[in-house]
Order: sequence, then C-alpha cells, then structure tokens
Amino acid sequence: MNATTRRSLQIQEERTSYEAAYLAGYADGEGCFCVTFNRSRRHRFGWEIRPSFSVSQNADRAEVLEMFRQTFGEGSIRPDRSDRTLKYETRSVPVLATKVVPFFRQHQLLSGKKNEFERFAAIVLSMHAGDHLTEEGFAKIVELARQLNASGAKRYGRSEIVPLQMNA
Amino acid sequence: MNATTRRSLQIQEERTSYEAAYLAGYADGEGCFCVTFNRSRRHRFGWEIRPSFSVSQNADRAEVLEMFRQTFGEGSIRPDRSDRTLKYETRSVPVLATKVVPFFRQHQLLSGKKNEFERFAAIVLSMHAGDHLTEEGFAKIVELARQLNASGAKRYGRSEIVPLQMNA
Repeated sequence: MNATTRRSLQIQEERTSYEAAYLAGYADGEGCFCVTFNRSRRHRFGWEIRPSFSVSQNADRAEVLEMFRQTFGEGSIRPDRSDRTLKYETRSVPVLATKVVPFFRQHQLLSGKKNEFERFAAIVLSMHAGDHLTEEGFAKIVELARQLNASGAKRYGRSEIVPLQMNA
Repeated sequence: MNATTRRSLQIQEERTSYEAAYLAGYADGEGCFCVTFNRSRRHRFGWEIRPSFSVSQNADRAEVLEMFRQTFGEGSIRPDRSDRTLKYETRSVPVLATKVVPFFRQHQLLSGKKNEFERFAAIVLSMHAGDHLTEEGFAKIVELARQLNASGAKRYGRSEIVPLQMNA
C-alpha cells in the first residue's frame, strides 16, 4: 500500500467514524426505539409484536435519513402522517438485530435514552432468537415493552396484552 | 510520557472527538441557530439584534444539554415555555463567535441545516466585529437574517425592520 492510498483510507475511516458518532447523536434527539403490539389472528398468541427504529427530519432536508438508510442497508423514507416531516424507519427484525443493535452498542447513546435502547435491544434479540414463540418468551417481551416508553403503550394497556389463544 | 499515560490521553482524545461529532449530530436534529429582532430604545437604530444557539431535550434527561454547556463553557438550561422540554441556550455574542461558530466549523453539519448555520455564523461574526453599529452593517445583518429561517421572521416582517433613528 503506498502513502497516498494509506492516507485516502485514513480519511475515509475518519469520515465514517465522524458520521457514525453524528448519527448516534442525531438518533439521541430524533430517534425512536419503539415496540408496538397489534391484535392479529395470523400471529401466535393473537398479537403481532412490531419493533421499529425510526428517525424524523424536516421534509426539506432528508440527507441524514439517507445516511441512516445507507448505514443499515434497509428501510423506508416516507412522509410522516402526523406532521410535515419525513421519517426513516426499519421494522425488519433481522436488520434490527444484526445492524441497528450492534451499531448503537458500538456508538453508544450518551443520554438516558440508552436505557430505552437497551430494553429495545433485549426485545429485538429475543425475537431474533425466536423466543417470542414460546409463552415464557412472549411474557418476557411484554414485560420489557411495558418498561419501554413505547407508542404501543398508548394503544393498549399492558394488562390487555395477554396470549389470546392460551386464554381462549 | 509512558505507555499508560499515552494510552490514557488517546482514550480521552477519542472520547472528546466522539462527543463532538455526537453533539453536531444532535444539534442537526434539535438545534436552532436563531436571530430575533426586538424593538429597543436602548439599541442603535431602535432594534436589538439577538442571535442565539439553543437545543432542546426531554426534561427527564438533560445529559446532552449539560454536555453542550460544558463544551461552550456558558449558557442556561431552563424549561421551555412552549412544552415539557428543557432548553440549553446561549445568547452571548462573544461565546457564539469564539466557541459555537468555531465548533460547528470544525464539526460540520451534514444536512441542509449547514446553510442556516453559515448565515448565522456570518451574522454573529459581523456583530462580534461591531459591524451592526454602522448603517451598512446593520442592513447587511437584516438581509442575512431574512435569508435565515429565524423565529424573528415570525414576529416582524423584514420590511418593518429598518433603522428607526434614521427614519425619524
């Protein structure tokens, strides 16, 4: 490797690490580590558990959302229904488990949001391992989600989320 | 310098540069580079020009705001009147000119907000040099602020902000 190549690689590395720290800071402000529950006949225990990582941005400048999409190699960028912002979102459990969670373990959140992230990570990794398909695993995820200040909490009280088939 | 000291300094340096990039990303999402104009008899031309850098955070986790205050060595952290957030803010022209502007020149914004910042920087450096005390400088700042999407624009139309003494 000659000196020019080495310097070029070094610059690339510095840029990548600056961007990663930048995205972590951006996610601290604008990111959401959310888990929602939706009633579903197609899912075991009658509930679909849907974890999602999303970040918002004013619609006139979507650059940072594009950086998130490139970093995780997946996800959508869409207008948010609630206001005039754009939202990057990924709901893919494999992507959350193998890209998003490792990213925020390497580039840590520096505020109390880190606790939210850790609960989210536990849910995602648990689902990725298939734990949510067992009664015990399902109950554990519901409990973790209860601790997480997730938008799902607004839709259903936690006491309503019980394995439906088992109760039937 | 022994190996342990060197390693310790290196870790400190890495942490500082991670934090700086993190704060830049955070400010991209939650920061405001604002310039407001207030009618004032005490100020030349009848207007007080008030630039401010601020960032908001949920009230239950103020860690990042504290990091901004430490980085710039100045500023207040207060509840925001409009909602249940806390806001870090500095309005000191010397601090804006010698700390905030150099910080965001070194740790650049990666979205279109960079353009807002550059206009803000031009206003702040111009005021720090005393240009706003001349008619020409004042007019230049009003024009820059007009281009900046500042909260001042909501309070007064730009055409209203004219040097009052000169018109009287």
